[in-house]
Amino acid sequence: MKENISVGLLGLGVVGSGVIQIINNHQEELVHQLGCSVSVGRVLVRDLEKARKKDIDPAVLTTSATDVIDDPNIDVIVEVMGGIEETRQYILKAFENGKHVITANKDLIALHGPELEDAAGKNNCDLYYEASVGGGIPLLRTLSDGLVSDRINQVMGIVNGTTNYIMTKMDKEGMPYDTALKQAQELGFAEADPTSDVEGLDAARKMVILARLAFLTDFDLEDVEVRGISNIALSDLEYGQKLGYVMKLIGFASFENEQVEVSVQPTFLAESHPLAGVENEFNAVYVNGEAVGETMFYGPGAGSLPTATAVMSDVVAVIKNMRLGVNGRRFIKPRFKKQLTPPTHSYSQYYVRLHVKDEVGAFANISQLFNEIGISFEKILQTPRKQQQELAEIILVTHKTSLDKFQKALGELENLNVVETVKSYYRVEGEIAQ
Amino acid sequence: MKENISVGLLGLGVVGSGVIQIINNHQEELVHQLGCSVSVGRVLVRDLEKARKKDIDPAVLTTSATDVIDDPNIDVIVEVMGGIEETRQYILKAFENGKHVITANKDLIALHGPELEDAAGKNNCDLYYEASVGGGIPLLRTLSDGLVSDRINQVMGIVNGTTNYIMTKMDKEGMPYDTALKQAQELGFAEADPTSDVEGLDAARKMVILARLAFLTDFDLEDVEVRGISNIALSDLEYGQKLGYVMKLIGFASFENEQVEVSVQPTFLAESHPLAGVENEFNAVYVNGEAVGETMFYGPGAGSLPTATAVMSDVVAVIKNMRLGVNGRRFIKPRFKKQLTPPTHSYSQYYVRLHVKDEVGAFANISQLFNEIGISFEKILQTPRKQQQELAEIILVTHKTSLDKFQKALGELENLNVVETVKSYYRVEGEIAQ
Repeated sequence: MKENISVGLLGLGVVGSGVIQIINNHQEELVHQLGCSVSVGRVLVRDLEKARKKDIDPAVLTTSATDVIDDPNIDVIVEVMGGIEETRQYILKAFENGKHVITANKDLIALHGPELEDAAGKNNCDLYYEASVGGGIPLLRTLSDGLVSDRINQVMGIVNGTTNYIMTKMDKEGMPYDTALKQAQELGFAEADPTSDVEGLDAARKMVILARLAFLTDFDLEDVEVRGISNIALSDLEYGQKLGYVMKLIGFASFENEQVEVSVQPTFLAESHPLAGVENEFNAVYVNGEAVGETMFYGPGAGSLPTATAVMSDVVAVIKNMRLGVNGRRFIKPRFKKQLTPPTHSYSQYYVRLHVKDEVGAFANISQLFNEIGISFEKILQTPRKQQQELAEIILVTHKTSLDKFQKALGELENLNVVETVKSYYRVEGEIAQ
Repeated sequence: MKENISVGLLGLGVVGSGVIQIINNHQEELVHQLGCSVSVGRVLVRDLEKARKKDIDPAVLTTSATDVIDDPNIDVIVEVMGGIEETRQYILKAFENGKHVITANKDLIALHGPELEDAAGKNNCDLYYEASVGGGIPLLRTLSDGLVSDRINQVMGIVNGTTNYIMTKMDKEGMPYDTALKQAQELGFAEADPTSDVEGLDAARKMVILARLAFLTDFDLEDVEVRGISNIALSDLEYGQKLGYVMKLIGFASFENEQVEVSVQPTFLAESHPLAGVENEFNAVYVNGEAVGETMFYGPGAGSLPTATAVMSDVVAVIKNMRLGVNGRRFIKPRFKKQLTPPTHSYSQYYVRLHVKDEVGAFANISQLFNEIGISFEKILQTPRKQQQELAEIILVTHKTSLDKFQKALGELENLNVVETVKSYYRVEGEIAQ
């Protein structure tokens, strides 16, 4: 049995540097747990000059990916370079060379996870990606191991720290969206181009990974319904507060009758919901299992060291598998064919804010419309008409209804004479039935 | 390789019945995950008549423990009968017979964990006890696997659902302790004799198990400082609210410079602390790792099916180990000799409520006393003197100080002329430095 396992890194950004730092600082623990030492054999970098300034042996640095992927002394590849197509090729080549791969690359896994899992399995290699969702929170392993004797029927999460930071600022301090985004950028929580975060795409990728794992089913990124946070009005957050809700960008995945539904959208949560108190850049994922009931996992969703910790937990798992000679058992073995939940079977509560002409019978017209479609209200809030305006504002929170009925109602509201505009509508997750 | 693994149960209470229910309902998933089926071979019960009424094949029932422990067809023993000495003997015998053991028995593990782990290891058997702490929350596995490349320096938890239910009722509804306890008993959250829960002993046992695992160190139950909740005054909860705190029964374990400290005591948490919002019978454990930072795990701390889920996750782990031929690697390998944190190095904030004579200079005397010991205040609340009373009430919240200094201050306060009584004092966990 080898006395040392050599790890190759593709990329030396903040996560890569964190991985090296943990390997160096935790040698004693690693030997204790694994019975062998772990070292960094080769590191692919973009810029040798820049990399030499880091606390790392310059002899291991290279600008050629093949130096890492083809090195016969390297057993485990840690991919922290990001990117899709080139990275995919590198990883496929690594599997051909019999190397195990750990990646933090959610975009790659969301898009090409099944293909890469197949390639890993064919070469008796491991592919792990704990760091791709929820940073330092050990979510994927918990879902695949801990809840193995349960059926998971719902996963709801705050899986993007950038948007949670922005929404916390908007909700708690009444800060406008643009200011909050700017502040997040200054603090390094948001990228210069924040599109992927604020439009919900980053969260959608993570939810695809979670849904595949939690429900053991195939699922593709294009099947996710996505709405971002860039159009949220502060007034909706205020009305939400009056009604006892907090708004969060929620990734929602449910599995019922072997049908899957995944969405990412701003959602009003009852203040008592365990996710409602998750603030700033923190992430949390709420899991509902048939037997276990409600559980929630909370932690830093990003950051150099937390993410590096997740990568290292995968490194440890791979090396344990190597020592046991059991690599190549897939992290996810899909059990169910993909079947999407039709809108007739997707149930939720909804919040709708309307601008309504201040006429006698206006509200009666609206409630008749909902009544005819078969939707009833849990809460109604009519705000005083603003001075010199002829419009009143009405906020409705429906009882649980199907998505198709709700969409029908939205369409008909726009055509209703007394309704000036449907200003906004959001999904609502109310009280949890205990 | 065996096509079926036979499990023997010691005990058929609510958890045992839950285990059988999961095995029956999840056969397909178990085969998918393990490549073999799982069946219930033999079940030790107290009362055959009563057991026959349950949904279980009467042929497997027995009132003799040796029928289960000595059955050569049984590979895995699930101990859900409770108790200490007799149970310990059964488990030791099971190991001698080469059987793996899963237990939900926190009392047994807190008292005899190290001895049982040794016996398991010597016989190449597994001993798992995920269900002993935090019910359905996969805590132990997460600590031992997920955070393996990190150093955990703090574990804080709400690990007793009974007391959390009572304290939630007291805090949220102003319900007196006795009424809340009675309600908890009526709902089945508290035992007829609630001593072990309300005096903090149950939580202490769980914290011992968590501390051993998180810090890889030896630790004994008698080293835990324990205070229960039965003497908490509603007025302290109200003052706490005014100061921005919520009181919880907190198990606290820290590891610094290879020194361990474990306590269970009612503690004021800042409202923003992730544990502050954990209500009713729910449990949550907050873990601080050097690299990962803050993480929290939340879920049902008890209940038939959640606990049975945790037991089943152990059953799956044991069977996976069997198929890999790697049983007998200990769950905990202690790395550090036990060294207790001395009171000079145990730091915290404290809340103190004093009844003080309403004299000129009273507060000056008190603050001089603290000042001389080297303790400063973060918050001071002086309540208006009650009519016709000569006593004023002063609430102090100290900055972080060592336990020995705080104990010195408490002692001297009692001797101070202007202080009538030290009505109460509690540990405070303030804002988390971000």
